[in-house]
Parts: sequence; structure tokens; C-alpha cells
Amino acid sequence: MADLRWGVWGIDADRMTLSDQVIDLLRQGLGVDPAAAPPKVRPGAVDLPEPVLKPAARDALTTVVGADHVRLDRDSRLLHVGGKSTTDLWRRRAGDADDAPDAVVLPAKHDEVIDVLKECSEHGVAVVPFGGGTSVVGGVEPARGAFRSVLALDLSRMARLVDVDERSMTARLEPGLTGPEAERLLNAQGLTVGHFPQSFEYATVGGFAATRSAGQASSGYGRFDELVEALRIATPSGSLELGRAPASAAGPDLRQLFLGSEGTLGVVTEVTVRVRPVPEAVLDEAWLFADFATGADAVRQLAQGGALPTVTRLSDEAETAVNLAMGGDVDTESPATGGCLLIASHEGTSASVAAAEKATTALLRESGGTPLAADIGHGWRSGRYRGPYLRDALLDAGAQVETLETATTWARLDALGAAVRDALTTELTGAGTPPLVLCHISHAYPTGASLYFTVVAKAASDPIAQWAAAKRAASEAISRQGATITHHHAVGLDHRPWMESEIGSLGIEVLRAVKTTLDPIGVLNPGKLIPPA
Amino acid sequence: MADLRWGVWGIDADRMTLSDQVIDLLRQGLGVDPAAAPPKVRPGAVDLPEPVLKPAARDALTTVVGADHVRLDRDSRLLHVGGKSTTDLWRRRAGDADDAPDAVVLPAKHDEVIDVLKECSEHGVAVVPFGGGTSVVGGVEPARGAFRSVLALDLSRMARLVDVDERSMTARLEPGLTGPEAERLLNAQGLTVGHFPQSFEYATVGGFAATRSAGQASSGYGRFDELVEALRIATPSGSLELGRAPASAAGPDLRQLFLGSEGTLGVVTEVTVRVRPVPEAVLDEAWLFADFATGADAVRQLAQGGALPTVTRLSDEAETAVNLAMGGDVDTESPATGGCLLIASHEGTSASVAAAEKATTALLRESGGTPLAADIGHGWRSGRYRGPYLRDALLDAGAQVETLETATTWARLDALGAAVRDALTTELTGAGTPPLVLCHISHAYPTGASLYFTVVAKAASDPIAQWAAAKRAASEAISRQGATITHHHAVGLDHRPWMESEIGSLGIEVLRAVKTTLDPIGVLNPGKLIPPA
Repeated sequence: MADLRWGVWGIDADRMTLSDQVIDLLRQGLGVDPAAAPPKVRPGAVDLPEPVLKPAARDALTTVVGADHVRLDRDSRLLHVGGKSTTDLWRRRAGDADDAPDAVVLPAKHDEVIDVLKECSEHGVAVVPFGGGTSVVGGVEPARGAFRSVLALDLSRMARLVDVDERSMTARLEPGLTGPEAERLLNAQGLTVGHFPQSFEYATVGGFAATRSAGQASSGYGRFDELVEALRIATPSGSLELGRAPASAAGPDLRQLFLGSEGTLGVVTEVTVRVRPVPEAVLDEAWLFADFATGADAVRQLAQGGALPTVTRLSDEAETAVNLAMGGDVDTESPATGGCLLIASHEGTSASVAAAEKATTALLRESGGTPLAADIGHGWRSGRYRGPYLRDALLDAGAQVETLETATTWARLDALGAAVRDALTTELTGAGTPPLVLCHISHAYPTGASLYFTVVAKAASDPIAQWAAAKRAASEAISRQGATITHHHAVGLDHRPWMESEIGSLGIEVLRAVKTTLDPIGVLNPGKLIPPA
Repeated sequence: MADLRWGVWGIDADRMTLSDQVIDLLRQGLGVDPAAAPPKVRPGAVDLPEPVLKPAARDALTTVVGADHVRLDRDSRLLHVGGKSTTDLWRRRAGDADDAPDAVVLPAKHDEVIDVLKECSEHGVAVVPFGGGTSVVGGVEPARGAFRSVLALDLSRMARLVDVDERSMTARLEPGLTGPEAERLLNAQGLTVGHFPQSFEYATVGGFAATRSAGQASSGYGRFDELVEALRIATPSGSLELGRAPASAAGPDLRQLFLGSEGTLGVVTEVTVRVRPVPEAVLDEAWLFADFATGADAVRQLAQGGALPTVTRLSDEAETAVNLAMGGDVDTESPATGGCLLIASHEGTSASVAAAEKATTALLRESGGTPLAADIGHGWRSGRYRGPYLRDALLDAGAQVETLETATTWARLDALGAAVRDALTTELTGAGTPPLVLCHISHAYPTGASLYFTVVAKAASDPIAQWAAAKRAASEAISRQGATITHHHAVGLDHRPWMESEIGSLGIEVLRAVKTTLDPIGVLNPGKLIPPA
């Protein structure tokens, strides 16, 4: 079962609290008022609707997975109510569990997933595949679609490292393995996947595949979709085994239909991924650039020269000031501060890290970069998974905080950044809650880069409507700029309205045709990804 | 219009002739008898069926592209009868033009392609997209399917470099550009695509995309599908514009449905590709390894260490002996010869080439490699596009010669090579024409590699049936080994019987559903790629 708790991220031991100084800054800068923070409903006080599951369906599911693995208890249902977007958290904090799944079903193997999908198609029960429950786009919202009942298909029992091919450097993983579980099993053999998104501690291998995940080290190791050699997929229409070679010209690459399919076309039951040796050396560097344009140009040159560090992350001026202030590294009131922070981490053999450090140092110096103290790089690494805990603390303090991301070509990056920043600022300022908008390049490529925005404002009395308006404004700006609506957060419910501008009406018809073939009754994750006809 | 001539490759000025010494070796080693070579029917003597195209269809097409670009003349039709497999050449040599298209239509732009597809759907005319006509798997065979008429959609008028984005390092290309045309236009701006398959001199950008082409330098520059940023596609159901960013999590990557779709799902009308600077330095190296296993292990280590040369090609013992003998570099009768030849070419800046040379030299020496004279590497480069001309000369001399290729993981590579070699040898020896089977690793990846086989034997009295049996035996061996039926030659007609073992019956249903959505009447390249229901 997923570890994530009701309405917050992670485990209690890792909770963050804001210092008085930070709260003062939020109060002064954004008008945030901790005393006015929306009240939090405790899980025990949440009103949960009665589960709707016909006895025949329940019996059929019990026959497939056993009675212990068809759960209708309150705790199981509460922990599978949607994902971890800020809107999800506001809803949970307000005690909203109206969308709780009617049951949580936990299959143990591929054949059981196939049989669950067949029974759900037979009995008309919607199925929401559930890995770590970390979606921030509504991807695991237990939506019923046209059906009376919905179950969360929790994959946490399918969590084996099936085998490792050390000569080919691949590993077969089951989908329910969380990031740390997969790494622990592989590390024991000296291997790593090298995939570390911010959700790493809870997100699962199946989710990485189903959402085209990108991790903090993807500039070095590659995005998750680039690491996938083969997939096993369960659908209501049967099984698919895709990927017979490192590369093939045997028609369209059908793996690429399931990577990013978000549980709407099938359930990922096994993923064969490329693995690498656990790095023998890790070097975290931090550099400062005079401004974002100069820093971005340096990152572009690294990418186009084939010299990207394993982690490459360039913050804009605002994010740099906040990050350095929160790390205590720089006095933000000093006029000597300013500029843009680049985190550049190298991982590999001692020799490859030394060579990479030498090559990037030369280029970054020539491009106007100044090296900063090593502890700033180390600070980034130690805090790399802390963002969601900081969000919980900010929400507690009465702040609105959410992130969004996009990507485009290098030529269009400046205009995209300005358009999204303007859209967010205009919308939230107009609503009486002027925001702080932070931005960084989270991933770089030879032809372009992603932009990752963090927005902080005073929470409005209806924080869900407040963010919905801001998100809509940003998404429309992204769409107008011709950029992608999401670089690595996937589509779910939240980005679905922009899928037509992303792939056109004919592209959507293609997705619908594939879905009808694989899921004729339409039980798989209804309403996600594919706009309704 | 395509440059390739009836029944042979390329242009007369580049014809090859075999030396008496080579002919003697073929005679002695394989029983090849030039006097018994099948006779060649001259194009002028070929019996061409009357074109079948209803006046209403012809009028509609003329309205779309103009009378000059709807061609029913004998020469146009002759030059669009199928591709350039050895079987194609045997058929052309025998004067077989039964499958000639009824017309050749030459659109000038995307909207004309859309309108041609609509008119063909309306009038029931099959459409075979035709770029350079270099398919070796029956991909451009003018098959009618269920229709009375078929036209070749020749894309040679769509041959512009639309624009270049020098900051993002991308270029938009029209599909009819041949390899040399695209390189000439880009080289003028200091840029290159870096895609050089053996068919480079005649193959087109649209064909590279439609077949998931891999080039000789793809170990360095990446396969063509990895270079594609965006695609514009024309289908009978309308247009698709796919690819809005270097990477995206906005659902399945639909570009990957059209890369490798071989004209069955749509016509590629524009390709945006990643470009790089024209290399300032090129260094061709040749190395010798004691045996194939040792050489393959060195290549594996280069790939897994991220140090693959731009061109990485390892020949087995037999191919090495033939290559060195034909290049005049080594006396094949000397017992000192033997071993396996590795071609390792580095392209890039002077500094990157020097660094790559240093890194690979150290690893190749440690792995048991011995550097050979520089002229062997240069010889490979000067002869890199000569293979098809050599084939023409061999067919003239009464030899059967054809190639096939596959790919698998490193762990399975030895077994795959042995199985294919055995299948070819057993089949052809059983038919009374014992073959010479040569093999090389043509492309390497961190997780595996391709194997490229060249088969030479005495041509049987029915050389088409002779090769069909050998090809079937090899394909069944590949399928049994779990390898891909094609690494870079695509599917066409020849590999279609093995598509079900490649992607499963459900994978094929997915392709059929996509095709029905985009091409409801089924006019697009009927019978190719997707097995019939």
C-alpha cells in the first residue's frame, strides 16, 4: 500500500516547519496570514461515502486476487483518494473524500491484472491504476466516468526485481517498486537506474513509465522513456510484450504509445530498463551567472556540445535569491547578491567526472560563470526531495503554492518564460493575491529546455478556484507560445483541455481508436489524458 | 523524379566491374558461373501493362497537381516499379514490370498531398509514397490491394530546406530531399544532419523518417528517429503536426507512430531534425581483433562507457578476410591474416576527436585490439556507398547476393549470429548453392547491437525462389531467437509475416485501428507493414 498520508506529503518524521523569519517575509512580501489559513479536517473526521460495488463484482475480484486483496475499509479508501497536487491537498484539508474509490484491489502478478481488467469490463467497474499516488495532475483521481463503481488498482504487491542482465546492462522491474526500493535492489548488485524525480521517495517504476517521467539527473542518465527497453502491458483485450532489441525498424515503436498513456490504454506490469554502474564519484558544483539569459546560453552550449552535467539546473534571479536565502548561503539584502544559480552535478567514474568537470569548467568560465562554494551544491543534493514538505508547511501558513512546467526550443525559451510569468502575475494580482513567481531550467537538451515555475501567493478564501484561474492563464500562455503543456508532469485531468492544441483533433482521434481497441468498455482510468468526444 | 535506373543501382558512371581474380574466386569458392548468369531484359524491351486509371480519377488528380504532374508515360512508370532489393533486381532483369503503377503523381506541397489522398480515397486508387525508391523490403512495391488502380506518389518536387533555427540547432526539411541534397543545403550554412545510410546517395528525408533509418554514423549522431523533433503528416483524414518541444510528457509520443509507418498511416510532408556543425575533424581508424567475440566485447565496452566512435563497425572473420582482400590491403592467402576488422571513425571538433581517439585507443588496446594502417579506415570511407554497385556486378557475374539485418541484446548476440548463419548455410547448401555468409555489427548501443549479414552464393536457375527460401529460414531463426526482424531495413512486404511475432496480435490490432482512423478507405500503401486481417 502507498505510504503517502492523507492530505500531506511523506512521513511525519520529515515534516518541515517555517522559521519565523520566513513567515515574516511571506507576510510582508505577499500578505500571507497564518491565522487566516484554511482549517484542516483530520482524517478521522472525514465523511466517506458508502462504497458502491455490486456483490457479483466483488466476488469476481475476490476470486482473482483473494479476499485479503479486495479492500473496502476506510483507511484503504482514504489513502487512494487522488494524488498530490496542491488542489488535491486543499481538497483533503477541507475533508473532501467524495471521490474515494469504492474498493482498493491489489493484484500480485500480470495474469491477475489481466483478469481484474476482464472482470471490471464485464461488471462495468472503472479501474484507476495506482502506484505511489504522487500524480500532481489528477492522474490517479478515482473518476468513475460512465460507471457506478471505481476501484484503485494498487500495484504495490508487484514489486520484484525480476532479473538483471549484467552483460546487456538491463533490469526487469515490476511496476509497484518505488524509486528507493528499485535502487536498493539494484544497488546491491552495483547498479542504478539513475532516475530521481522530486517524487522519487514515493513514486513507482510503473508510474515513471506511464507518465514519461523525467528526473533531476535526466540530463545525464536520460529521461525514463529513454531508459525503457521493453514493456509488458495488461489490457482488457489481452497482453502486449513490446521491445525486442535496443533499436528496431519493425514499424512504429508501440512502446511509445504506452509510455505516457497514464493507465488509459493498459496497465504496465513489467518494465525492462537500461541500468548503469552505481557512480563511483559524485561532484556537485554551483555556479553564478549575471542573469538568466547568460546562464541559459551557457547551458545551451553545454547541451549542444554534448557536455551536459548529470544534473543541470539553472534558476532565475528570483528563485536564486530565495534558494540562497533559504539555504543561508547569501545575504539577500546585500546588493552584491543577485544573478542566477546553476547546479551542475557530475556522476560517473572518477576519471569521467574529472574529465566532465574540466570540460564544463572551461566552458562555464568562458560563458561568464563564477564558481560558488561547494556547500551550495551539497545543499541542493541534501534538499532535493524536500520541496513537497516545504509545500505542506507553506499551506499550513496560509500560502498558496504550486508548480507547473513546460518545454520549448532554445529560440523560443525567453518568450515562453516571459509569457507564463506574465500570465501568472496578471491573473493572481488581478485576484488580489500578487504572486512570487520563481523559475528554473530543470532539463536541457541540444534543441531546447524545460522551464519549471513555482508560484507562491497568499491563499485566497477559495484557494482551489484561485489556483484554477492561475493555472488556466498559464496553460493558455503555454499553448499560445506553441510549447508543450507538460514536460514531465503528464496530463491527467488538469492538462486534458490543452491536449487538442498539443496533438490536434486527429491526434486525439488516434488515441481514442487505440483506446477502443484495447479497452472497448472504457474502464481504464476514465476521463484522463484523452479529451471526451 | 528518382534518379535510380531500371534494374540496377545508381548511375552508369559509378558502375563496377569485377576483376578476373574475384570472378575466379567466386567460381572456385561458390561455383558461380558468369556464362550461366540469367539474361537481362533491356528496359526498352519490357512489356508494360496498360495503365488503369478512370478518367474521373485522372481529372481529379490533374486538378490538384496540374497535368504535368500526373504522368502515365512509360519511363515514369518503369522507374517507379518497386524498390532495390535483390529480388526486385532479379525481377527487373527478367523484364517483369507487371506491377508498374498506373500513374506517377508529383505533388508540390502538403495541401496537394492532402487533396491527392482525398481524391484517391474518393475514387478508390491505391497510393504508394515514393521517395528515392531505395527500399530493399518491398516497401515501394506498387501494390493495388483491393483497388483497381495504383499510383506512385513521387515526392521529389517537395525538396526544400524550409528553414533553419541556428540557436535551437534544428532544420525543417521537405521529404523529397535526397541525402546529398539535404546535406548540400545544410552544409552551405555549416550544418549537417549526420545521417549516412548506405542508400544515402538516393534515399530521401521522408524515407529516412518513414522507415526508422539508421546510418553508418548513427552510433555518433543517433538513428534518424532520434534526430526527429517534429513531423508534419498528411492523411486521408486530415493533417497532423506532432512535436512541440525537445521532450514532452503530454501523453504518448505520436511521432513514434509515424516514424516507421512506411506510408501506411500517412505521408510525411515535413521533418524537423536536429542538426550539428559540419565536423571540423574526421579521423578514420581501423583495428584488428583476434576474433569476433573479443572485438564485440570491446565494442560493448565502448557503448556502455559512453565512448562509441561516430562510426563503429566490426566485421566477423569472413567479412574481414573479404574486405581486406578486396581492398588489396592484406594477402588473404597468408596465414598471418585473420581476425576481425573494426572501423572506428571519429567526427567532431579537433579537440573532441582528439579526446575520443585517446579514450577509445586506450580501451581498444586493453581489449586486445591492434591498430591497422590508416588507409584501411580511409578505404572504408571512400567505399561506403559502393555496396549496391558491387551487388550489380555480382548479379551480372551469375552470383546471388543479398543482405539482411537484425538486432538483439549483448547477452543474446552470439546465439543470434550463430542461428542466422546456420539457417542461411543449411538452407542454401541444401539447395545445392553453398553460400559465403559475412556478418558485421553495424550499430552498437549500450544494451545491444545489430548484426548485418551479407550472403553470396551461386545464383540458382530461379534466383527469386532461392533467396525467398533462404530469407524465410533466416527470418524464422531471428524470430525464434527473440530478436527484431529488422534493425534498419523496415518491414515492407518482406518482413510482414514476422510482425505478429514482433509485436503480437494485439499490437497488430492497434496498428489496424490507427490505420482505419487515418485512412478509412485503406488507399495508403496497401499490404505493407500491417498483416492482413
